[in-house]
Amino acid sequence: MRLNTKVTRIDVEKKAVHIGEKESLPFDYLVFATGAKALLPPIPGVGEEGCFTLKNLVDGRNLKAYLKEKNCRSALIVGAGFIALEMAEAFVTLGLKTTLVHRGELPASRWDGDLAKVMLAELTAQGVDFLPRRHVLGVEKRGKSLVLVMEEGEIAGDLVLFALGVKPAVELAKEAGIRLGVSGAVAVNFHQETNVAGIYAVGDCSETFHRVSRRWVNMPLGDVANKQGRLLGRHLSGEAAYFPGVVGAQSFKLFKLEAAATGIDEKEALSVGFDPVSTLIWGNAIGSAMPGLTQVALKLIADKGSGMLLGCQAVGQKGAVSRVNVVSAALWRQATVDDLAFLDLAYAPPFGAAWDPLHIAAQNLMKLL
Amino acid sequence: MRLNTKVTRIDVEKKAVHIGEKESLPFDYLVFATGAKALLPPIPGVGEEGCFTLKNLVDGRNLKAYLKEKNCRSALIVGAGFIALEMAEAFVTLGLKTTLVHRGELPASRWDGDLAKVMLAELTAQGVDFLPRRHVLGVEKRGKSLVLVMEEGEIAGDLVLFALGVKPAVELAKEAGIRLGVSGAVAVNFHQETNVAGIYAVGDCSETFHRVSRRWVNMPLGDVANKQGRLLGRHLSGEAAYFPGVVGAQSFKLFKLEAAATGIDEKEALSVGFDPVSTLIWGNAIGSAMPGLTQVALKLIADKGSGMLLGCQAVGQKGAVSRVNVVSAALWRQATVDDLAFLDLAYAPPFGAAWDPLHIAAQNLMKLL
Repeated sequence: MRLNTKVTRIDVEKKAVHIGEKESLPFDYLVFATGAKALLPPIPGVGEEGCFTLKNLVDGRNLKAYLKEKNCRSALIVGAGFIALEMAEAFVTLGLKTTLVHRGELPASRWDGDLAKVMLAELTAQGVDFLPRRHVLGVEKRGKSLVLVMEEGEIAGDLVLFALGVKPAVELAKEAGIRLGVSGAVAVNFHQETNVAGIYAVGDCSETFHRVSRRWVNMPLGDVANKQGRLLGRHLSGEAAYFPGVVGAQSFKLFKLEAAATGIDEKEALSVGFDPVSTLIWGNAIGSAMPGLTQVALKLIADKGSGMLLGCQAVGQKGAVSRVNVVSAALWRQATVDDLAFLDLAYAPPFGAAWDPLHIAAQNLMKLL
Repeated sequence: MRLNTKVTRIDVEKKAVHIGEKESLPFDYLVFATGAKALLPPIPGVGEEGCFTLKNLVDGRNLKAYLKEKNCRSALIVGAGFIALEMAEAFVTLGLKTTLVHRGELPASRWDGDLAKVMLAELTAQGVDFLPRRHVLGVEKRGKSLVLVMEEGEIAGDLVLFALGVKPAVELAKEAGIRLGVSGAVAVNFHQETNVAGIYAVGDCSETFHRVSRRWVNMPLGDVANKQGRLLGRHLSGEAAYFPGVVGAQSFKLFKLEAAATGIDEKEALSVGFDPVSTLIWGNAIGSAMPGLTQVALKLIADKGSGMLLGCQAVGQKGAVSRVNVVSAALWRQATVDDLAFLDLAYAPPFGAAWDPLHIAAQNLMKLL
């Protein structure tokens, strides 16, 4: 185990990894697990003390230390994806006045607008300021404060967190002549092997087969990386093993809400040649006769021609993740809307209704096929 | 709508339903929705006042009225299936001293013994007396009490609930010459049509195709009946519609526990020609770094030769039903252990681990194939 060691170059022909100027290590197999980098906007001031991104444990520790050291009272978050939203919750929980600054109209652009509005209502209810349609020009240090300068005005805070997504860290691979896919991540096969025999890539730096869009995509999520690592370990130890891909399942918690999605959205569906139709319903997360009734909003997307299920998004205080997981299992095996419309679920009044929101949504969608 | 009307006979040839001696109604289509009857043991005293079964709303109302009228303080339940267990919770919640009397060793014989032990521990923790290996001989009224006489002794209570399961109510259909299946319920096709054209059966009195065992079975559950009714309504109104069957999903709540199962158990698997292997694990219902950690016990069953998933059972304070529903969706589409071992679920720490108990169980099971 060589820690704190920077690889400077990889020689594919000679099968060697160069460390600094002098040292090199030979390899039979090489695995890229270089991960992803947090995106920073190309604007002045993002390097100021008090500007953060959050990609790894060190980032988290640095941020936490800064909060304490500087006794921060307010936080500005640029972005409104799931890291931005989870951090909004974390900051509010720590008692910070928290503001989300976003280029778009609504948070969580992966989710349908109607579902994103539910998230926005929760943000507002929890005291988070959400500033939509803002274009950030730069950050300036003024006294103890950091000022976010936008086309639309200025706002000051004790720290700025940029949560604008990630890009695969592929410089080393690219320089070594390893092929990248259209996603910009390292192209691999089902054994996570790159175009060069014996060289592999796993996790955020690599591509993955998407079983719904049938494209190779970059899916920088922890569980996917974890599974690929395990798979490759087996493969390299001689076991028959392949990574079967993903269906795009993801989730996050936002205060009292669960938000979950799987499959592809209508835009992605169109881009790969499907003819998407969708329905959005509000259903009971548990049986309607039971105490503690809560609602879950559920969007279901399918291909009009074939009836194939394409995706599902859900938001609610309960039952969003569990339903999206059911749809993920269905998508994994190329299920149709008909399959979901009569799917046999473990019904009992404390846990749901005889007609689950999934059934109701699928029954609705059948009429649009 | 003719309520409080007893059909005495059905004339299939003349397409007529007889009501009493004199009246008859003609039909083009006839639907049997005669449901099921609660089983009563063939022993003396089961007709005594204070002896109950619980199959329908009237039963429930009668029981509730009796509890209040007689100011009942104790309840005896014969049986240990999900109705017995749910009623144990209901009685305890009402403050009654509650005793379960069971022929077997453990409650919930549909579930693996190790999972049933978890349920038994919960029963005990909640103050329910569980008497295993008891053989009931009769009921006697002695003063205000009802005495359950068993081979192994006697026990007194203010009421006795027999919860021994149900059998399909098929007398009318049988007398009319409608074919019954091996389950004893009315045999139907995918349109719920019986062997006589134009005569249908839905719900607890009918059979259903089991997509895992590939047999026609009787599955007397509310959600199945509900779906079949809807399906048949569509079919009779001229829509193309068929009932795609079940995978055996079921669940119940027992105080703080969720219990859920789907597919078939090892005994059923053997009986239809599979070669079952299984694994039972304890996993975290939510991410291990999160507060409120609880465990879920999960059993997974598959066919050794083909790797096909056959069933899943789960018990825990959280996450049992949701995981069984994922397996139900997988079973619906004939998934394999490999499918489940890398299934893409909506991971986030508040909702689960990157390696869900389902993944871990499936990974374990892969080694046994």
